[in-house]
Amino acid sequence: MREAFHDQLDTMFGDLADICGSVETAVRLATEALLTGDASTAEKVISADVDIDRARERVEDSAFLLLSLQQPVASDLRTVVAALRMVSELERMGDLSVHVAKIARLRVPNLAVPDDVRPTIERMAEVAEEMVSRVSTIIRERSVDEALALVRADEEMDRLRRGSFTALLSADWSHGVEAAVDIALLGRYYERIADHAVSVANRVVFVVTGENPTSVDA
Amino acid sequence: MREAFHDQLDTMFGDLADICGSVETAVRLATEALLTGDASTAEKVISADVDIDRARERVEDSAFLLLSLQQPVASDLRTVVAALRMVSELERMGDLSVHVAKIARLRVPNLAVPDDVRPTIERMAEVAEEMVSRVSTIIRERSVDEALALVRADEEMDRLRRGSFTALLSADWSHGVEAAVDIALLGRYYERIADHAVSVANRVVFVVTGENPTSVDA
Repeated sequence: MREAFHDQLDTMFGDLADICGSVETAVRLATEALLTGDASTAEKVISADVDIDRARERVEDSAFLLLSLQQPVASDLRTVVAALRMVSELERMGDLSVHVAKIARLRVPNLAVPDDVRPTIERMAEVAEEMVSRVSTIIRERSVDEALALVRADEEMDRLRRGSFTALLSADWSHGVEAAVDIALLGRYYERIADHAVSVANRVVFVVTGENPTSVDA
Repeated sequence: MREAFHDQLDTMFGDLADICGSVETAVRLATEALLTGDASTAEKVISADVDIDRARERVEDSAFLLLSLQQPVASDLRTVVAALRMVSELERMGDLSVHVAKIARLRVPNLAVPDDVRPTIERMAEVAEEMVSRVSTIIRERSVDEALALVRADEEMDRLRRGSFTALLSADWSHGVEAAVDIALLGRYYERIADHAVSVANRVVFVVTGENPTSVDA
């Protein structure tokens, strides 16, 4: 019984890592759509989101079954509840990628990101994608060290977001209101993806150690 | 045992409704700070957020104890898991109020909201606050009808947000980039508060009926 339980738990964490992989693809393709102005890539992200939603439902259903049938306590219970929260956050990261893709689609055949702010947005997207990719590994290997290291990547994200604001609020900004609003919202979406990545990683730390590394933002 | 369990569940839903009441205050004061440019009101929202965070932790701890000690199944289990999700969303709504308050604080002694877009922002804030207030009642009374009616209020929020974009992207916009970015982000924050309100209400429907009214967005 206990062994079956832990097998099911491992399967669930494998599923979570797979969903995280789908989110990584969503972030990558949304960014590609944004930087190339390719509508079909944007559409791909938007239509693939339903798969992430369905995968979330499957994890929720198995978590529910595990709680009902196995009645876990202590650290096992903590793990199942953490999995439920992680899957909500992963789904939300998918939604945020859809928001990025929708901004790309809205501006086709133009680009939402003006040339001089492109390096910042490109780097934000890169940091977000890399963080999501690391979270897959963190989930799969339940690696506390990797999870704690992720917080540093998030600090770069915060710096980049401040940098993007400085650019769009400077007197040199020549791209008008629409581009500024797009950049502000894009910054917000990438930042939230990174926040959720840190939060999922923190939940892995909690599952493994029983303690929160820092206050976890849901 | 069962009766004690349901008493504890009632207490937990009472706590959730209280947290929702604190969120309502946060939304109201954040809006007041925004529309008056009063820094001390903004500070009040920002510093009170820790109370919402602590209240969330208390609900999480009791949910955990309930799961461990009472090992609920079927609809009781569903209710405890729903409470865990609701409290995360309520805390997030508190965070979003803090974001509104921080925009207000950033612009003191000026106002972030230019006069001609003020009616839209005021109405968004009103709709958000009213929705949060209705969610308190929905939680306390586990009212399915009220929960279903909340979706209509959310439709007004979507219209208002589109209206705010039309205003700030029109050729008449004379308030520059900074104000436009503020309005776009404020619109996003109020809209997210409303989204979470609908989501919490939907979870109440799920708790009572065992069915999701619509796809629930975490």
